[in-house]
Amino acid sequence: MATIIDGRALAKKLNGQTSQRVEKLKQAHGMTPELVVIIVGTDSASQRYVRNKHRTAERLGIRSIVKELPESISQEELLNVVRQYNEDPEVTGILVQDPLPKQINEKLVTRSILPEKDVDGFHPVNVGKLFLNDTTKYPVACTPKGVMTMFDEYQIDLKGKNAVMIGRSAIVGKPMAALMLNAGASVSILHLLTKDITQYTKQADIIVSATGSLHTLTKNDVKPGAVVIDVGQNINEAGHLVGDVDYDDLFDEVSYITPVPGGVGPMTIATLMQQTVDLAEWSLERDQ
Amino acid sequence: MATIIDGRALAKKLNGQTSQRVEKLKQAHGMTPELVVIIVGTDSASQRYVRNKHRTAERLGIRSIVKELPESISQEELLNVVRQYNEDPEVTGILVQDPLPKQINEKLVTRSILPEKDVDGFHPVNVGKLFLNDTTKYPVACTPKGVMTMFDEYQIDLKGKNAVMIGRSAIVGKPMAALMLNAGASVSILHLLTKDITQYTKQADIIVSATGSLHTLTKNDVKPGAVVIDVGQNINEAGHLVGDVDYDDLFDEVSYITPVPGGVGPMTIATLMQQTVDLAEWSLERDQ
Repeated sequence: MATIIDGRALAKKLNGQTSQRVEKLKQAHGMTPELVVIIVGTDSASQRYVRNKHRTAERLGIRSIVKELPESISQEELLNVVRQYNEDPEVTGILVQDPLPKQINEKLVTRSILPEKDVDGFHPVNVGKLFLNDTTKYPVACTPKGVMTMFDEYQIDLKGKNAVMIGRSAIVGKPMAALMLNAGASVSILHLLTKDITQYTKQADIIVSATGSLHTLTKNDVKPGAVVIDVGQNINEAGHLVGDVDYDDLFDEVSYITPVPGGVGPMTIATLMQQTVDLAEWSLERDQ
Repeated sequence: MATIIDGRALAKKLNGQTSQRVEKLKQAHGMTPELVVIIVGTDSASQRYVRNKHRTAERLGIRSIVKELPESISQEELLNVVRQYNEDPEVTGILVQDPLPKQINEKLVTRSILPEKDVDGFHPVNVGKLFLNDTTKYPVACTPKGVMTMFDEYQIDLKGKNAVMIGRSAIVGKPMAALMLNAGASVSILHLLTKDITQYTKQADIIVSATGSLHTLTKNDVKPGAVVIDVGQNINEAGHLVGDVDYDDLFDEVSYITPVPGGVGPMTIATLMQQTVDLAEWSLERDQ
């Protein structure tokens, strides 16, 4: 029987720490971390995400600015908005919610955010530092960083372990693979072109799935005692939010597993808040 | 019996193409690619490498400047030298030969080179773009890029293949893993902490070894027909230059193999020259 990795409880704990750090920044340095979330257009899922981020930030004492821009905005206008926040010393973290309308080059926008305010950790220079296992301070994509917090909390040591990352997205798969590699795991990165995923997962101590497809893994695909982290968010036929893996089938076979919902999901926003405060603290260190 | 991947012949072919591209740049644009190699101190191996780079560059029509600096140079002085070359519009590529003396922070020096003149491809923003499989133009570490040229020349398609990278250095292992991933392989990155390398190599279609240890692989460690790329450069007991893998033992088992010497080695400098011209051409595109 697996231990369930409780993302809700851990996110709550992390948020508690974050709010204490915010309080300390205010008292010791007269500084309030300030997160700017830029949203373009009226996509309802995006608006829901942004609202969640905004509410959580406010609850933790972070100053939160939601900058709503019209769907019709031009590339140059959007870059100008980012530039203003880059130059504003009060703003410590900036993110641009995706998706962006067609006339916008998302890559250029991501790269226009100052690396030291890049709270999503998507800027190539931050990605490069992560892949190089740089020991200085820089932001990292929040979902994988949240998974590392889970490993830490449940004392799951990655050193010398065989880890498998299913999925190679810029937001989850690649940074997650880099983090596990930096923590001492041997890491296999699998994806849609991989012919036999089971061949890898059957040898794995740690499996992270971020494919967005249902039932990527059942108990026949894993080694007994494996750790399974499910980053998937899918809607099943019954209309329920479920992960990638077959949770019920795996439950008796694995040692640790994250549920969906209540696993990785809650950690992403909590990590975003944590990293907003990280960036604020690091900015003070730079100013010294 | 394996096909021997002939790095010397391929390097010669590549150098021929590079020299034609240099000629074309001169004739069509009145431009000569200019490579600056900065060497600090008197390490004899470094001096030999730098001499080789210098000679090859001159032979291909690239303007080559070797800037020799004293062992005692300060961090600030070295950064100033780099800054001068960054600002010099004639200079299209800059590299700082390692190792550097103790008083120098190598990482800071690497990052001080303008990313668009970073002919070694070591700057984190270039590493980040590589890992993200960015489709714009940026330099990539020369040894792994040279290996990709080998795959191309011998029509070894990586799509859907199982690739294993033994070694996770910033110069070879990590960029090589990223390149193979970008080419569609499933990639496992192994290293000193990996408990059972054979478990991976026995399933691999492509194996790249960059460990700097002798006899990492024998025929019992590989699948028949695998492709073996040996990036190792070791001196054996008899005082000869040899690779990581047991070449003779593997020879009848694998489909392709690189010899040492005469395999990956010659491709590194040839790729450096190719990339010097890449950077020069890209600078023209930026100026348009």
